[in-house]
Amino acid sequence: MRLITLNATVTASNDRDAAALREKLVSRGTLLVNVMSAAGSGKTTLLSRLIRDLPDVKIGVMEADIASDVDAKTIEALGAAAIQVHTSGMCHMDAGMTAAAVEAMDPSLRLLFLENVGNLICPAEYDTGAGLNLMLLSVPEGDDKPLKYPLMFQKSDALVVTKTDTLSYFTFDLEKCVERVKKLNPAIRIFPVSAKTGEGMAALEAYLRERLAALTEGTDHA
Amino acid sequence: MRLITLNATVTASNDRDAAALREKLVSRGTLLVNVMSAAGSGKTTLLSRLIRDLPDVKIGVMEADIASDVDAKTIEALGAAAIQVHTSGMCHMDAGMTAAAVEAMDPSLRLLFLENVGNLICPAEYDTGAGLNLMLLSVPEGDDKPLKYPLMFQKSDALVVTKTDTLSYFTFDLEKCVERVKKLNPAIRIFPVSAKTGEGMAALEAYLRERLAALTEGTDHA
Repeated sequence: MRLITLNATVTASNDRDAAALREKLVSRGTLLVNVMSAAGSGKTTLLSRLIRDLPDVKIGVMEADIASDVDAKTIEALGAAAIQVHTSGMCHMDAGMTAAAVEAMDPSLRLLFLENVGNLICPAEYDTGAGLNLMLLSVPEGDDKPLKYPLMFQKSDALVVTKTDTLSYFTFDLEKCVERVKKLNPAIRIFPVSAKTGEGMAALEAYLRERLAALTEGTDHA
Repeated sequence: MRLITLNATVTASNDRDAAALREKLVSRGTLLVNVMSAAGSGKTTLLSRLIRDLPDVKIGVMEADIASDVDAKTIEALGAAAIQVHTSGMCHMDAGMTAAAVEAMDPSLRLLFLENVGNLICPAEYDTGAGLNLMLLSVPEGDDKPLKYPLMFQKSDALVVTKTDTLSYFTFDLEKCVERVKKLNPAIRIFPVSAKTGEGMAALEAYLRERLAALTEGTDHA
Protein backbone atom coordinates (compact mmCIF):
# COMPACT_ATOMS: atom_id res chain seq x y z
CA MET A 1 0.00 0.00 0.00
CA ARG A 2 1.30 3.44 -0.90
CA LEU A 3 1.40 6.31 1.52
CA ILE A 4 1.60 9.85 0.20
CA THR A 5 2.21 12.88 2.41
CA LEU A 6 0.84 16.10 0.97
CA ASN A 7 1.01 19.73 1.94
CA ALA A 8 -1.67 22.24 1.08
CA THR A 9 -1.31 23.86 -2.30
CA VAL A 10 -0.56 27.45 -1.47
CA THR A 11 -2.36 29.10 -4.36
CA ALA A 12 -5.48 31.16 -4.68
CA SER A 13 -6.36 29.14 -7.74
CA ASN A 14 -8.07 26.18 -6.07
CA ASP A 15 -11.17 26.58 -8.21
CA ARG A 16 -9.07 26.62 -11.39
CA ASP A 17 -7.12 23.54 -10.28
CA ALA A 18 -10.39 21.80 -9.44
CA ALA A 19 -11.90 22.59 -12.85
CA ALA A 20 -8.78 21.27 -14.61
CA LEU A 21 -8.82 18.03 -12.63
CA ARG A 22 -12.54 17.54 -13.24
CA GLU A 23 -12.11 17.99 -16.97
CA LYS A 24 -9.19 15.57 -17.06
CA LEU A 25 -11.11 12.87 -15.18
CA VAL A 26 -14.25 13.28 -17.26
CA SER A 27 -12.24 12.91 -20.48
CA ARG A 28 -10.78 9.73 -19.04
CA GLY A 29 -14.20 8.35 -18.03
CA THR A 30 -13.42 8.32 -14.32
CA LEU A 31 -16.03 9.47 -11.83
CA LEU A 32 -14.26 11.02 -8.83
CA VAL A 33 -16.50 10.94 -5.77
CA ASN A 34 -15.55 13.21 -2.87
CA VAL A 35 -16.83 11.45 0.27
CA MET A 36 -17.23 13.78 3.22
CA SER A 37 -18.54 13.32 6.75
CA ALA A 38 -17.72 13.70 10.43
CA ALA A 39 -15.25 11.29 11.97
CA GLY A 40 -16.80 7.93 12.66
CA SER A 41 -19.87 8.13 10.47
CA GLY A 42 -18.94 5.06 8.50
CA LYS A 43 -17.16 6.20 5.32
CA THR A 44 -14.81 3.23 5.14
CA THR A 45 -17.55 0.75 6.01
CA LEU A 46 -19.78 2.18 3.26
CA LEU A 47 -16.96 2.06 0.71
CA SER A 48 -16.14 -1.51 1.71
CA ARG A 49 -19.75 -2.49 1.06
CA LEU A 50 -19.80 -0.72 -2.33
CA ILE A 51 -16.63 -2.54 -3.39
CA ARG A 52 -18.21 -5.88 -2.51
CA ASP A 53 -21.55 -4.99 -4.14
CA LEU A 54 -20.11 -3.64 -7.41
CA PRO A 55 -17.58 -6.30 -8.47
CA ASP A 56 -17.95 -5.34 -12.15
CA VAL A 57 -16.83 -1.73 -11.60
CA LYS A 58 -13.14 -0.88 -11.35
CA ILE A 59 -13.00 0.97 -8.04
CA GLY A 60 -10.16 2.82 -6.34
CA VAL A 61 -10.05 4.60 -3.01
CA MET A 62 -7.83 7.45 -1.83
CA GLU A 63 -7.96 7.60 1.96
CA ALA A 64 -7.09 11.04 3.32
CA ASP A 65 -6.18 11.23 6.99
CA ILE A 66 -4.13 13.26 9.41
CA ALA A 67 -2.40 10.08 10.54
CA SER A 68 -2.58 6.26 10.36
CA ASP A 69 -3.23 3.94 7.46
CA VAL A 70 -5.93 1.72 8.95
CA ASP A 71 -8.57 2.72 6.37
CA ALA A 72 -6.40 2.07 3.31
CA LYS A 73 -5.43 -1.32 4.70
CA THR A 74 -9.12 -2.19 5.16
CA ILE A 75 -9.90 -1.27 1.54
CA GLU A 76 -6.87 -3.06 0.16
CA ALA A 77 -7.85 -6.22 1.98
CA LEU A 78 -11.01 -6.21 -0.16
CA GLY A 79 -8.92 -6.28 -3.32
CA ALA A 80 -9.56 -2.70 -4.45
CA ALA A 81 -6.84 -0.22 -5.35
CA ALA A 82 -6.12 2.01 -2.36
CA ILE A 83 -3.68 4.65 -1.31
CA GLN A 84 -3.37 6.45 1.98
CA VAL A 85 -2.88 10.20 1.79
CA HIS A 86 -1.52 12.04 4.80
CA THR A 87 -2.56 15.68 4.84
CA SER A 88 0.22 17.05 7.08
CA GLY A 89 -2.30 18.10 9.71
CA MET A 90 -4.63 19.80 7.20
CA CYS A 91 -8.30 19.30 7.96
CA HIS A 92 -9.35 18.97 4.31
CA MET A 93 -8.16 18.05 0.82
CA ASP A 94 -7.83 20.81 -1.77
CA ALA A 95 -7.76 20.40 -5.57
CA GLY A 96 -3.96 20.40 -5.82
CA MET A 97 -3.64 17.71 -3.16
CA THR A 98 -6.37 15.68 -4.83
CA ALA A 99 -4.69 15.97 -8.24
CA ALA A 100 -1.41 14.73 -6.75
CA ALA A 101 -3.20 11.78 -5.16
CA VAL A 102 -5.04 10.97 -8.43
CA GLU A 103 -1.65 10.84 -10.18
CA ALA A 104 -0.75 7.89 -7.95
CA MET A 105 -3.81 5.88 -9.02
CA ASP A 106 -4.35 3.60 -12.01
CA PRO A 107 -5.89 5.79 -14.79
CA SER A 108 -8.19 2.98 -15.89
CA LEU A 109 -10.23 3.09 -12.66
CA ARG A 110 -13.86 4.01 -13.34
CA LEU A 111 -15.10 4.91 -9.87
CA LEU A 112 -12.52 6.72 -7.78
CA PHE A 113 -13.45 7.61 -4.21
CA LEU A 114 -11.67 10.29 -2.25
CA GLU A 115 -12.37 9.65 1.42
CA ASN A 116 -11.88 13.18 2.68
CA VAL A 117 -10.65 14.05 6.19
CA GLY A 118 -13.36 13.38 8.78
CA ASN A 119 -15.07 16.63 9.71
CA LEU A 120 -18.18 18.51 8.60
CA ILE A 121 -16.58 21.91 8.21
CA CYS A 122 -13.35 22.40 6.26
CA PRO A 123 -13.87 19.83 3.46
CA ALA A 124 -17.05 21.70 2.45
CA GLU A 125 -15.03 24.82 1.71
CA TYR A 126 -12.72 23.37 -0.95
CA ASP A 127 -13.65 22.14 -4.40
CA THR A 128 -11.52 19.03 -4.88
CA GLY A 129 -12.30 18.62 -8.56
CA ALA A 130 -14.67 15.74 -7.87
CA GLY A 131 -17.54 14.99 -10.24
CA LEU A 132 -19.77 14.09 -7.33
CA ASN A 133 -19.85 15.35 -3.75
CA LEU A 134 -21.27 12.70 -1.46
CA MET A 135 -21.73 13.31 2.24
CA LEU A 136 -22.54 10.90 5.04
CA LEU A 137 -24.51 11.58 8.19
CA SER A 138 -24.82 8.69 10.61
CA VAL A 139 -27.91 8.16 12.74
CA PRO A 140 -25.98 8.33 16.06
CA GLU A 141 -24.75 11.85 15.18
CA GLY A 142 -28.26 13.27 15.37
CA ASP A 143 -30.82 14.87 13.06
CA ASP A 144 -29.79 18.43 14.02
CA LYS A 145 -26.59 18.40 11.97
CA PRO A 146 -28.09 20.24 8.94
CA LEU A 147 -28.80 23.16 11.28
CA LYS A 148 -25.22 23.22 12.55
CA TYR A 149 -23.20 22.53 9.41
CA PRO A 150 -25.33 23.97 6.58
CA LEU A 151 -22.51 24.49 4.07
CA MET A 152 -21.65 20.79 3.87
CA PHE A 153 -25.28 19.94 3.08
CA GLN A 154 -25.46 22.75 0.51
CA LYS A 155 -22.32 21.62 -1.30
CA SER A 156 -23.26 17.95 -1.54
CA ASP A 157 -24.98 16.34 -4.52
CA ALA A 158 -26.10 13.41 -2.41
CA LEU A 159 -26.49 12.61 1.28
CA VAL A 160 -26.16 9.07 2.57
CA VAL A 161 -27.79 8.64 5.99
CA THR A 162 -25.76 5.75 7.41
CA LYS A 163 -26.27 3.23 10.24
CA THR A 164 -30.06 3.20 9.74
CA ASP A 165 -30.09 -0.18 11.53
CA THR A 166 -29.66 1.87 14.73
CA LEU A 167 -32.72 4.09 14.11
CA SER A 168 -34.74 2.34 16.79
CA TYR A 169 -31.98 2.95 19.31
CA PHE A 170 -31.38 6.68 18.81
CA THR A 171 -33.80 9.60 18.76
CA PHE A 172 -33.23 10.47 15.12
CA ASP A 173 -36.21 11.79 13.17
CA LEU A 174 -35.43 10.85 9.56
CA GLU A 175 -38.38 12.81 8.17
CA LYS A 176 -37.37 15.96 10.05
CA CYS A 177 -33.77 15.51 8.95
CA VAL A 178 -34.77 15.17 5.29
CA GLU A 179 -36.92 18.30 5.60
CA ARG A 180 -34.02 20.29 7.09
CA VAL A 181 -31.63 19.09 4.38
CA LYS A 182 -34.05 19.80 1.51
CA LYS A 183 -34.56 23.32 2.85
CA LEU A 184 -30.81 23.91 2.50
CA ASN A 185 -30.46 22.07 -0.78
CA PRO A 186 -33.68 21.19 -2.67
CA ALA A 187 -31.81 19.28 -5.42
CA ILE A 188 -29.91 16.94 -3.08
CA ARG A 189 -30.48 13.17 -3.40
CA ILE A 190 -30.91 11.36 -0.08
CA PHE A 191 -30.16 7.68 0.52
CA PRO A 192 -30.84 6.16 3.96
CA VAL A 193 -28.71 3.00 4.17
CA SER A 194 -27.28 0.42 6.50
CA ALA A 195 -23.99 -0.90 5.16
CA LYS A 196 -24.27 -3.55 7.88
CA THR A 197 -27.63 -5.07 6.84
CA GLY A 198 -27.55 -3.86 3.22
CA GLU A 199 -30.84 -1.98 3.56
CA GLY A 200 -31.03 0.88 1.06
CA MET A 201 -27.73 0.01 -0.65
CA ALA A 202 -29.40 -0.92 -3.97
CA ALA A 203 -30.77 2.60 -4.49
CA LEU A 204 -27.39 4.18 -3.76
CA GLU A 205 -25.64 1.74 -6.07
CA ALA A 206 -28.14 2.43 -8.87
CA TYR A 207 -27.49 6.15 -8.43
CA LEU A 208 -23.72 5.68 -8.71
CA ARG A 209 -24.12 3.55 -11.85
CA GLU A 210 -26.41 6.21 -13.33
CA ARG A 211 -23.86 8.96 -12.62
CA LEU A 212 -21.12 6.82 -14.10
CA ALA A 213 -23.18 6.19 -17.25
CA ALA A 214 -23.97 9.91 -17.57
CA LEU A 215 -20.24 10.67 -17.36
CA THR A 216 -19.41 8.26 -20.16
CA GLU A 217 -22.22 9.62 -22.34
CA GLY A 218 -20.94 13.12 -21.64
CA THR A 219 -17.48 12.06 -22.78
CA ASP A 220 -18.81 10.57 -25.99
CA HIS A 221 -20.37 13.88 -26.93
CA ALA A 222 -17.45 15.99 -25.82
CA MET B 1 -30.06 34.10 24.90
CA ARG B 2 -27.10 36.02 23.54
CA LEU B 3 -25.50 35.31 20.23
CA ILE B 4 -21.96 36.49 19.57
CA THR B 5 -20.30 36.34 16.16
CA LEU B 6 -16.53 36.18 16.33
CA ASN B 7 -13.75 36.31 13.81
CA ALA B 8 -10.41 34.64 14.31
CA THR B 9 -7.86 36.69 16.18
CA VAL B 10 -5.22 37.37 13.58
CA THR B 11 -2.17 37.35 15.81
CA ALA B 12 0.76 35.02 16.26
CA SER B 13 0.33 35.42 19.98
CA ASN B 14 -2.35 32.82 20.62
CA ASP B 15 -0.27 31.13 23.31
CA ARG B 16 0.26 34.46 25.10
CA ASP B 17 -3.46 35.29 24.90
CA ALA B 18 -4.27 31.83 26.23
CA ALA B 19 -1.89 32.18 29.17
CA ALA B 20 -3.36 35.58 30.06
CA LEU B 21 -6.92 34.25 29.97
CA ARG B 22 -5.98 31.20 32.04
CA GLU B 23 -4.36 33.39 34.71
CA LYS B 24 -7.37 35.70 34.83
CA LEU B 25 -9.83 32.84 35.25
CA VAL B 26 -7.75 31.09 37.91
CA SER B 27 -7.54 34.32 39.93
CA ARG B 28 -11.31 34.55 39.70
CA GLY B 29 -11.82 30.93 40.79
CA THR B 30 -13.41 29.88 37.49
CA LEU B 31 -12.52 26.55 35.92
CA LEU B 32 -12.78 26.89 32.15
CA VAL B 33 -13.28 23.50 30.53
CA ASN B 34 -12.64 23.24 26.79
CA VAL B 35 -14.93 20.46 25.54
CA MET B 36 -13.82 18.99 22.21
CA SER B 37 -15.12 16.14 20.06
CA ALA B 38 -16.38 15.21 16.63
CA ALA B 39 -19.82 16.40 15.58
CA GLY B 40 -22.56 14.34 17.16
CA SER B 41 -20.61 12.66 19.96
CA GLY B 42 -22.90 14.03 22.64
CA LYS B 43 -21.29 17.21 24.01
CA THR B 44 -24.56 19.03 24.68
CA THR B 45 -26.21 15.92 26.13
CA LEU B 46 -23.25 15.41 28.50
CA LEU B 47 -23.30 19.05 29.59
CA SER B 48 -27.05 18.89 30.12
CA ARG B 49 -26.57 15.91 32.42
CA LEU B 50 -23.76 17.64 34.36
CA ILE B 51 -25.95 20.71 34.89
CA ARG B 52 -28.72 18.53 36.33
CA ASP B 53 -26.31 16.45 38.45
CA LEU B 54 -24.37 19.41 39.92
CA PRO B 55 -27.10 21.82 41.08
CA ASP B 56 -24.82 23.33 43.76
CA VAL B 57 -22.20 24.46 41.20
CA LYS B 58 -22.69 27.69 39.26
CA ILE B 59 -22.30 26.48 35.68
CA GLY B 60 -22.16 28.40 32.42
CA VAL B 61 -21.84 27.15 28.86
CA MET B 62 -20.44 28.86 25.77
CA GLU B 63 -21.65 27.02 22.69
CA ALA B 64 -19.40 27.54 19.68
CA ASP B 65 -20.84 26.67 16.30
CA ILE B 66 -20.57 27.59 12.66
CA ALA B 67 -24.31 28.22 12.60
CA SER B 68 -27.55 27.70 14.58
CA ASP B 69 -28.32 28.21 18.25
CA VAL B 70 -29.99 24.88 19.05
CA ASP B 71 -27.37 23.88 21.64
CA ALA B 72 -27.47 27.13 23.61
CA LYS B 73 -31.28 26.93 23.71
CA THR B 74 -31.08 23.37 25.09
CA ILE B 75 -28.70 24.48 27.87
CA GLU B 76 -30.71 27.57 28.69
CA ALA B 77 -33.86 25.50 29.05
CA LEU B 78 -32.09 23.72 31.94
CA GLY B 79 -31.64 27.02 33.75
CA ALA B 80 -27.88 27.39 33.22
CA ALA B 81 -26.21 30.47 31.79
CA ALA B 82 -25.56 29.98 28.08
CA ILE B 83 -24.37 31.95 25.11
CA GLN B 84 -24.08 30.92 21.52
CA VAL B 85 -20.86 31.86 19.75
CA HIS B 86 -20.75 31.86 15.97
CA THR B 87 -17.25 31.36 14.65
CA SER B 88 -17.71 32.91 11.19
CA GLY B 89 -16.97 29.61 9.51
CA MET B 90 -13.84 28.93 11.60
CA CYS B 91 -13.45 25.29 12.57
CA HIS B 92 -12.07 26.02 16.05
CA MET B 93 -11.98 28.57 18.86
CA ASP B 94 -8.71 30.38 19.56
CA ALA B 95 -7.72 32.17 22.77
CA GLY B 96 -8.79 35.62 21.60
CA MET B 97 -12.22 34.36 20.55
CA THR B 98 -12.57 32.51 23.85
CA ALA B 99 -11.59 35.60 25.86
CA ALA B 100 -14.23 37.63 24.00
CA ALA B 101 -16.87 34.99 24.75
CA VAL B 102 -15.82 34.80 28.43
CA GLU B 103 -16.34 38.57 28.68
CA ALA B 104 -20.02 38.00 27.90
CA MET B 105 -20.44 35.55 30.80
CA ASP B 106 -21.22 36.24 34.49
CA PRO B 107 -17.81 36.43 36.28
CA SER B 108 -19.17 34.59 39.32
CA LEU B 109 -19.60 31.31 37.41
CA ARG B 110 -17.43 28.54 38.87
CA LEU B 111 -17.53 25.94 36.10
CA LEU B 112 -17.49 27.42 32.63
CA PHE B 113 -17.71 25.07 29.68
CA LEU B 114 -16.61 26.01 26.20
CA GLU B 115 -18.30 23.63 23.81
CA ASN B 116 -15.80 23.89 20.97
CA VAL B 117 -16.69 23.44 17.29
CA GLY B 118 -17.39 19.79 16.51
CA ASN B 119 -14.36 18.22 14.90
CA LEU B 120 -11.35 16.21 16.04
CA ILE B 121 -8.71 18.20 14.20
CA CYS B 122 -8.55 21.99 14.37
CA PRO B 123 -9.63 22.54 18.00
CA ALA B 124 -6.65 20.43 19.12
CA GLU B 125 -4.26 22.91 17.52
CA TYR B 126 -5.27 26.01 19.50
CA ASP B 127 -4.80 26.65 23.21
CA THR B 128 -8.03 28.38 24.24
CA GLY B 129 -6.82 29.38 27.70
CA ALA B 130 -8.87 26.64 29.35
CA GLY B 131 -7.77 25.14 32.66
CA LEU B 132 -8.93 21.71 31.54
CA ASN B 133 -9.11 20.11 28.10
CA LEU B 134 -11.83 17.51 27.99
CA MET B 135 -12.50 15.44 24.89
CA LEU B 136 -15.38 13.15 24.04
CA LEU B 137 -15.33 10.04 21.90
CA SER B 138 -18.64 8.31 21.40
CA VAL B 139 -18.94 4.55 21.06
CA PRO B 140 -20.60 4.73 17.59
CA GLU B 141 -17.57 6.63 16.23
CA GLY B 142 -15.31 3.62 16.71
CA ASP B 143 -12.27 2.62 18.77
CA ASP B 144 -9.80 3.49 15.98
CA LYS B 145 -10.06 7.25 16.46
CA PRO B 146 -6.87 7.54 18.60
CA LEU B 147 -4.96 6.16 15.61
CA LYS B 148 -6.47 8.73 13.26
CA TYR B 149 -6.55 11.89 15.37
CA PRO B 150 -3.60 11.49 17.77
CA LEU B 151 -3.10 15.19 18.52
CA MET B 152 -6.54 15.63 20.08
CA PHE B 153 -5.89 12.71 22.44
CA GLN B 154 -2.42 14.06 23.28
CA LYS B 155 -3.72 17.53 24.12
CA SER B 156 -6.57 16.40 26.35
CA ASP B 157 -6.38 16.09 30.15
CA ALA B 158 -9.38 13.79 30.19
CA LEU B 159 -11.29 11.64 27.73
CA VAL B 160 -14.98 10.91 28.20
CA VAL B 161 -16.09 7.85 26.24
CA THR B 162 -19.77 8.63 25.69
CA LYS B 163 -22.85 6.58 24.75
CA THR B 164 -21.54 3.48 26.57
CA ASP B 165 -25.14 2.24 26.69
CA THR B 166 -24.64 1.37 23.01
CA LEU B 167 -21.51 -0.77 23.61
CA SER B 168 -23.42 -3.99 23.01
CA TYR B 169 -24.64 -2.67 19.68
CA PHE B 170 -21.38 -1.49 18.13
CA THR B 171 -18.06 -3.26 17.70
CA PHE B 172 -16.12 -0.96 20.02
CA ASP B 173 -13.33 -2.52 22.07
CA LEU B 174 -13.10 -0.27 25.15
CA GLU B 175 -9.97 -1.98 26.44
CA LYS B 176 -8.18 -1.61 23.11
CA CYS B 177 -9.30 2.02 22.86
CA VAL B 178 -7.95 2.81 26.35
CA GLU B 179 -4.66 1.14 25.45
CA ARG B 180 -4.35 3.21 22.26
CA VAL B 181 -5.15 6.43 24.11
CA LYS B 182 -2.73 5.73 27.00
CA LYS B 183 0.03 5.06 24.49
CA LEU B 184 -0.47 8.58 23.10
CA ASN B 185 -1.00 10.21 26.48
CA PRO B 186 -0.10 8.15 29.59
CA ALA B 187 -1.38 10.85 32.01
CA ILE B 188 -4.87 11.17 30.50
CA ARG B 189 -7.87 10.37 32.72
CA ILE B 190 -10.53 8.25 31.02
CA PHE B 191 -14.22 8.19 31.95
CA PRO B 192 -16.61 5.83 30.14
CA VAL B 193 -20.12 7.23 30.65
CA SER B 194 -23.67 7.10 29.45
CA ALA B 195 -25.36 10.46 29.94
CA LYS B 196 -28.58 8.64 29.08
CA THR B 197 -28.50 6.01 31.84
CA GLY B 198 -26.16 7.90 34.19
CA GLU B 199 -23.61 5.08 34.25
CA GLY B 200 -20.12 6.40 35.01
CA MET B 201 -21.28 10.00 35.58
CA ALA B 202 -20.37 9.96 39.31
CA ALA B 203 -16.67 9.41 38.59
CA LEU B 204 -16.59 12.22 36.03
CA GLU B 205 -18.43 14.56 38.37
CA ALA B 206 -16.04 13.75 41.24
CA TYR B 207 -13.13 14.54 38.93
CA LEU B 208 -14.60 17.93 37.97
CA ARG B 209 -15.21 18.79 41.66
CA GLU B 210 -11.64 17.78 42.43
CA ARG B 211 -10.25 20.01 39.66
CA LEU B 212 -12.45 22.86 40.86
CA ALA B 213 -11.21 22.43 44.45
CA ALA B 214 -7.58 22.33 43.28
CA LEU B 215 -8.14 25.58 41.40
CA THR B 216 -9.50 27.35 44.47
CA GLU B 217 -6.65 26.04 46.63
CA GLY B 218 -4.22 27.25 43.99
CA THR B 219 -5.81 30.69 44.11
CA ASP B 220 -5.56 30.86 47.91
CA HIS B 221 -1.83 30.30 47.77
CA ALA B 222 -1.24 32.63 44.85
